[in-house]
Amino acid sequence: MPRAARVESPVSSSRAKLVLTTLDLLRRGGLSSAGINQVVDASRAPKGSVYHYFPGGKQQLVIEALHEAQRTVGDSFAQTFRAKAAAADKVRALFRRTAAALAANGFGGGCPVAAVTLDLDRESEPLRRVCERIFDAWVETIAVGLDDVPATERAAVAQLILAALEGGLVLARARAAAAPLLESGNVLAAMLTARFARRRRAGRP
Amino acid sequence: MPRAARVESPVSSSRAKLVLTTLDLLRRGGLSSAGINQVVDASRAPKGSVYHYFPGGKQQLVIEALHEAQRTVGDSFAQTFRAKAAAADKVRALFRRTAAALAANGFGGGCPVAAVTLDLDRESEPLRRVCERIFDAWVETIAVGLDDVPATERAAVAQLILAALEGGLVLARARAAAAPLLESGNVLAAMLTARFARRRRAGRP
Repeated sequence: MPRAARVESPVSSSRAKLVLTTLDLLRRGGLSSAGINQVVDASRAPKGSVYHYFPGGKQQLVIEALHEAQRTVGDSFAQTFRAKAAAADKVRALFRRTAAALAANGFGGGCPVAAVTLDLDRESEPLRRVCERIFDAWVETIAVGLDDVPATERAAVAQLILAALEGGLVLARARAAAAPLLESGNVLAAMLTARFARRRRAGRP
Repeated sequence: MPRAARVESPVSSSRAKLVLTTLDLLRRGGLSSAGINQVVDASRAPKGSVYHYFPGGKQQLVIEALHEAQRTVGDSFAQTFRAKAAAADKVRALFRRTAAALAANGFGGGCPVAAVTLDLDRESEPLRRVCERIFDAWVETIAVGLDDVPATERAAVAQLILAALEGGLVLARARAAAAPLLESGNVLAAMLTARFARRRRAGRP
């Protein structure tokens, strides 16, 4: 696993474990579930080690966990959208993979960036900007893979795809079922084809 | 205001105020921001009155607040989707109204049902089922207004519209800007037209 391969020493291993534990807690319950005490309990790390590795406390830990999510989720998006395939097929694959990941954790953990965003009231403006930049990076990753969408529309279409994915994750979690993601992916893919296939057939970029 | 018109006595007024305060807290920060102490602080109600009106404590209060949201948001959806208009125009209106409401609260409070859903880890299965039923009711409300979508596809299209709206709210909150909602509504409306307009022209239901 790439994640394990990055861990090179006991020090970085303890540090990485704290980040991954925080990320898991954020996925499951948002900001309020990822307090220092909860991270210590879930990771079985000594409390002092948290402040040793993360002198900025909870906010630093949360930001590093979000950046870890940005990388791993972004890599997965890039893999899907770099494929040689029609945009509609990439959208179906994206929603299918996301549904499988949600089912694999028992419908208990969704997107950590969305979970943090909806808890932002009590937290800081810097954290909002981290979430904003992560969503922007994901939209960009999706947009570059939309070959059959005109270049001027790619960013807006990619943003809609990400919005539908994030909202589909919410509906799927509420229903404890993959169907809202799978069905939304299929409908969105069919609409993408209807909207842009004629342009492709007409030879327009 | 219809909300004030429903309040008929000091008793129901105090009770209603606790429900609306809880709803506002849920919109802003999810489940963890709507504890009994926070509701008491924000509503300036005596703590005893919370347990007097809501013997089931936080869970009862949260469920009643979610049902209040189901009614008011559902009424707004119904108003939009009952209109005599093309589905694409209704979608644009839905996203525009939602963006205006989000801007009106300074991008600080989104959908309370989504916020609760993403915090469900620490809470009960009954609460998940409440969220599930509310989302189902909203999908149904949207679906009946999609006149120009074939009847067999209305539920899935309505579900995609709700997913894109919920995800658009997350992206708009992270960006503290209305653009992600407005742009997503426009792209979705254009795709709806492309997918279903030919059917309408061909006279199919």
